[in-house]
Amino acid sequence: MYSFSEFSVHAENPIEEEDVVAERLERQGKKILKLNRGDPAVYFPTMKYMIDAYVKALKEGRTRYSDFTGIKSLREAVSARYKRLYGIDAGPDDIVITNGVSEALMFINSVLVNRGDKAVFFRPYYPLYIPDLKINGGNPIIERYSEERNWDIDIDSLERAVRKDLKARKRLKYLVITNPNNPTGTVLEPNALRELVEIAKDYGMVLISDEIYDEITFNGARYTSVSKLAEGIPHIILNGASKDFDATGFRIGFTIIPGKDKTSVEMKRRIAEYAKLRLCVNTPAQYAVAEGISNVAEHSKGIKKLVAEIEKRINFAAKRINESAYMHVVQPRGAYYLFPKLDMKAMRFKDDRSFVDRLLKEKGVQITRGSGFGEPGYIRIVGLPPKDILETAINRIEDFCRVHSR
Amino acid sequence: MYSFSEFSVHAENPIEEEDVVAERLERQGKKILKLNRGDPAVYFPTMKYMIDAYVKALKEGRTRYSDFTGIKSLREAVSARYKRLYGIDAGPDDIVITNGVSEALMFINSVLVNRGDKAVFFRPYYPLYIPDLKINGGNPIIERYSEERNWDIDIDSLERAVRKDLKARKRLKYLVITNPNNPTGTVLEPNALRELVEIAKDYGMVLISDEIYDEITFNGARYTSVSKLAEGIPHIILNGASKDFDATGFRIGFTIIPGKDKTSVEMKRRIAEYAKLRLCVNTPAQYAVAEGISNVAEHSKGIKKLVAEIEKRINFAAKRINESAYMHVVQPRGAYYLFPKLDMKAMRFKDDRSFVDRLLKEKGVQITRGSGFGEPGYIRIVGLPPKDILETAINRIEDFCRVHSR
Repeated sequence: MYSFSEFSVHAENPIEEEDVVAERLERQGKKILKLNRGDPAVYFPTMKYMIDAYVKALKEGRTRYSDFTGIKSLREAVSARYKRLYGIDAGPDDIVITNGVSEALMFINSVLVNRGDKAVFFRPYYPLYIPDLKINGGNPIIERYSEERNWDIDIDSLERAVRKDLKARKRLKYLVITNPNNPTGTVLEPNALRELVEIAKDYGMVLISDEIYDEITFNGARYTSVSKLAEGIPHIILNGASKDFDATGFRIGFTIIPGKDKTSVEMKRRIAEYAKLRLCVNTPAQYAVAEGISNVAEHSKGIKKLVAEIEKRINFAAKRINESAYMHVVQPRGAYYLFPKLDMKAMRFKDDRSFVDRLLKEKGVQITRGSGFGEPGYIRIVGLPPKDILETAINRIEDFCRVHSR
Repeated sequence: MYSFSEFSVHAENPIEEEDVVAERLERQGKKILKLNRGDPAVYFPTMKYMIDAYVKALKEGRTRYSDFTGIKSLREAVSARYKRLYGIDAGPDDIVITNGVSEALMFINSVLVNRGDKAVFFRPYYPLYIPDLKINGGNPIIERYSEERNWDIDIDSLERAVRKDLKARKRLKYLVITNPNNPTGTVLEPNALRELVEIAKDYGMVLISDEIYDEITFNGARYTSVSKLAEGIPHIILNGASKDFDATGFRIGFTIIPGKDKTSVEMKRRIAEYAKLRLCVNTPAQYAVAEGISNVAEHSKGIKKLVAEIEKRINFAAKRINESAYMHVVQPRGAYYLFPKLDMKAMRFKDDRSFVDRLLKEKGVQITRGSGFGEPGYIRIVGLPPKDILETAINRIEDFCRVHSR
C-alpha cells in the first residue's frame, strides 16, 4: 500500500521555510532583504586561487569518480591543517570527505542510532541536527546554553539533565556541540569543553564537534578544538570548505575521527561504508579545496580580511540591535549570526513564527525564527551583508516592532 | 554506551571491495587492469562544451548555495529532455536534483520504508539498491530476470513470486527496475514494462525506474521509458549526468516524479524536505549539466560517438568471451557491462568471490563478483576500455580459468 515512513515527517528546515513567501513577493516585484541564509559567498567572492585550482582540475580532466572517502591530497591537506592549527594528530585515513557537513550528519546518525536512542544537544542549536536524528528514530535530549554566561555551557545544569534520566543512560549515543556556535556566535571556553569531554566519557557518548566556523572568530576570542582535549575518547570533528573557505556551493565537508580506540576505528569503518554507497563527492571541487587549504599564504590573506570585515559588520549590527527597546543580543565572538531575544511581551505577536512571517510580508526582511533553533522568542539575523543593508534591515525590524507594540 | 545501529552493518559495496588488494598490488609496482568501475570519463573525456560551461559558472561566481531542489535552469533542462525524448510531461517542480542517483536512493528509502517493509528487485541487480533498503530496516524480495529471454522480465514468474506471500502485500513499498540494466545490458521490452506497471498498480507499489543509461543503447535496441506507460500510477524516474553525459565526477542526479496523484505529490514533498536537510548540490556543476542537456546539438554529436565506440567494444568483448570454454555472456544491448556466466563446475574455485580475488592477485585484472549482483557464479566486466585492454584482460581471464580448471 502507498504510505510513507513514520520518521520521514521529521525532515524539515526552518531556515528555508519562508522561501515560498519570499519568492511570491519577489514575483510581485518586491525586493527582499534576505538575512536568513548564512552564505558568505553571496557577499565575498570565493578566492581566485581556489577558483583557478578548480578550473585547472576541470581542464586536466578531473571529471571521473574519485575515492569514496575523498581524494588523498584533500585528506592530507585537512590532516595537515588540524595538525598546524591545533596540534591534532589525524591522518588522511582518519578523514572522510562528504557532501558538506550535512551528509556527514546523515551518515553518523544512520551509523549510530537505533529507534529510541537518544542524543544530547544544546539550545539554541543548528536546526538540522534534530531532523537527522529523528529520521533515524532517535529522540533528542535538549540542554540549554546559558545566556547569562554569553551562551557558554553551564556544566552543572548539563550534568543534572543527563543524570535525571538514568534509565536512558544506555541509550545515550552522542552529544553535539557547535563551536563557534550557530546561531549565537559563542566560542566555547576550554574549561567548559574539558568538562564536556568528561561527561561524554562518563556516559559513553560519542562527542561530536561541529567546527565549521573555527577560523571565523573575533572580538578577542581564542579558539580551542575540543579534539585536543578529547584524546582517547571517541569523538568526531566536523568541518568543511563552506565557511572558512567561503565556498558554500562546492559542498565539501570533512569528517575527522582521530581516535585509535575500538569505537573510533569501527565508526570510521562504518562511515566509510556509507560513503561507498554514494560512490564519491564532486571530484574537481575536491582539488579546489585541497589547494584552498594547502596554500596557507593565500588562505591566510583571505581569511584575515574576511574575518575583519565580519567583525565590523557583526559589531555594528549588535550595537544597533541593542539600541532597540524591543531586542537584546549577546555580543557574538564567532561565526556571523546575531541571535537577539525579542521582547515578546511588549508586542502583539502570537509567536516568533508569526513575527518572522509578518516581518517578511510587511517589511520585506527575511530572517529565521528562534523556535527553529529551539528558542522561541528569539530571531536569527545573518550579519554578513554590508552595513547599509544591515542598517536598513534592522531599522525595518525596529519599525515593525514599534508598529506592533502593545 | 558505545554501540552501532542494527542496520548499519548492511552498508557495503561489492564493486569496490577489492580496492584494498588492488592498491597493495599497485604499491608493489604491479599494473592492474581495472574493469570494475563503470566510469566512462576514464576512457572518454567529458565534452569540452560542458567543461566550458562549468568554468564559466565558476568565473561568474556561481559558488554559493543554490536551491535545495536544484537550480531552475537545470530542472527545466531535465524536464525538456524527457519531453523531447519520450513525450513525458514532468515540470521543473516535479524534479529534484541530487548528489547522483545514489543520494536519491537514500532519500527515497528513508521516505518510504519502515522496519519490516519490503521492496521488489530483479537479479542481477545493481548492488547498491539493497543496502539502501536494508539500512532503513527494509527487506528485499528478489525476483530474477530471465537469462533465457536475454535477461528480460519473466512476468509470470514475477506474479507468482509476489502473490506467494500475500501477507506481505501491505508491506510492499516499491519495485525497482534498471533500464538499460546494469550489469546485463538488457533494454527492457515495452510489453514487459506494461505488465510491470500493472503489477505495481495492483499491489500498490511505487514503481522506480533507474534510467541512468537510457541514451546508451545499441545493437538495434529501442528504448522505452516506463514513465510513458505508467501515467496515473505513482512512479519515480532516476537519471543523471554520470553516464549519458559522461560526467561521473560531477555527482549530478535527477529524481523525476511526474505524477499528479496524491502519493506522487506527497513523495515529491517529502523528498524535497530531505533535500533541504543537505542544503544543495554542488552549484557550478549544475550549470555545467544544464548546458550539457540544453545544448542538444553538441550532446547529440558526443553521445553518438560515445555509443558507437561502446557498441564496438562491447561486441568485441562479448564475442571474445563467448569463444571461451569457461564463460558465456548474453549479448548486451545497452549500458557498457558484460555479465558472463562462469562454468564453475569446470573450475576449482570455492565461489565467484574467490575467483575474482585470485584473478586480481594472480593476473592483475580487477572485476566484480556476480554474487554482488545477486547472481553467484557470474562476473561483471566493464566494457569501456579500448579493445587492446579488453583483449588482454579477457585473455588473462581465460588463462586463469584454464590454469584452475579441473
